[in-house]
Amino acid sequence: MAGVSVFGPPLSTAVCRVLACLFEKGVDFNLVNLDLSKGQHKSPDFLKIQPFGQVPAFQDEHTSLFESRAICRYICDKYADRGPALLGREGGGPAARAQVEQWLEAESQSFNQPSSVLAFYIAYAPRMGMPQDPAAIERNEDKLGKVLDVYDRRLGESRFLAGDEFSLADLSHLPNAHFINAGGKGEMFESRKNVARWWEEISARPAWKKTVEMQSAPPA
Amino acid sequence: MAGVSVFGPPLSTAVCRVLACLFEKGVDFNLVNLDLSKGQHKSPDFLKIQPFGQVPAFQDEHTSLFESRAICRYICDKYADRGPALLGREGGGPAARAQVEQWLEAESQSFNQPSSVLAFYIAYAPRMGMPQDPAAIERNEDKLGKVLDVYDRRLGESRFLAGDEFSLADLSHLPNAHFINAGGKGEMFESRKNVARWWEEISARPAWKKTVEMQSAPPA
Repeated sequence: MAGVSVFGPPLSTAVCRVLACLFEKGVDFNLVNLDLSKGQHKSPDFLKIQPFGQVPAFQDEHTSLFESRAICRYICDKYADRGPALLGREGGGPAARAQVEQWLEAESQSFNQPSSVLAFYIAYAPRMGMPQDPAAIERNEDKLGKVLDVYDRRLGESRFLAGDEFSLADLSHLPNAHFINAGGKGEMFESRKNVARWWEEISARPAWKKTVEMQSAPPA
Repeated sequence: MAGVSVFGPPLSTAVCRVLACLFEKGVDFNLVNLDLSKGQHKSPDFLKIQPFGQVPAFQDEHTSLFESRAICRYICDKYADRGPALLGREGGGPAARAQVEQWLEAESQSFNQPSSVLAFYIAYAPRMGMPQDPAAIERNEDKLGKVLDVYDRRLGESRFLAGDEFSLADLSHLPNAHFINAGGKGEMFESRKNVARWWEEISARPAWKKTVEMQSAPPA
């Protein structure tokens, strides 16, 4: 099929990351929902484009990709002439892109692990009828709190993580932060002045609101 | 100070990643060793360029950066005219870069966690007189084995992870893989035919050999 396709359920945080990026850049796409409970992400055809059997996978004409942050970088590079410059201001060169990359890596290496565990226990597990793990919640809340303390200092110096413009580094935080807020731990963000301002601004972006709407749409 | 500086001990896997990239690109640099046991990575001056208090930090003229994979991408972008094209072949555009990015993200998201834990217990802990954790070793060996199974299939199709050319995706695996091999678990790589061929080839690169030599140099 021609054009852009994203494979995976819109409730997956990694799928959401890609959808938010596509909406920001104004790139039309086709979402191919997968039923993970039926193991559709482990089928031989799917494993050809996602060898780890995870979501999302992505196709754009003859390009197949996996890993949400790699897909987002590709979307920003390929569709550089559309929407905001999410990988550093136009003409800023390697140094401007690197400012985004270092905070995108902070998301990937420091924020992602504790926020994924928290999002799982407070937002996903209840939907799936799975038990809570209070010790894991406490441990990861503590770990995430230390990361958000660093963010709060950073966001006291600049409007967004990589500088004065919204970037892929901010966007990449939206999915996990959304589920932590939706799962009742919003005070982790609200209690830190600069993080609170930042979260309010980035979560109000139209592209993110469209992503959240897709989560509540009935499966196709 | 003018030119490129890397801050951190050369035994750190994240520092090694950056050193290997600089050697590949033929970029001169100054290594500023830090004594982590004295908390030099938590000093107010260091926290100005690495707000999480981790290593490495990096400076190139007026650009300060943290996070090893972000630093490596910057080196490849800034010094694109030197050494091999580690972020996709010249003229290959966003699709060629994305092939590297997806396997660099596989390293970051799938390979890094279990290989870091293993490297810690079998290579670092003995040097530091710390106790082993056989259960953690077994759990992460199992997890890493599943990742290497995917790599073995991939490396049956192409010489390197992202295609026929060595790239930042391969390079990024060197530090953890080195310490796992040096720590006595080399059979994880040797027992998988294509992974074995790949590891033998990438670990023999002159840039990596120079990095390993720096590890055994006496601290400045």
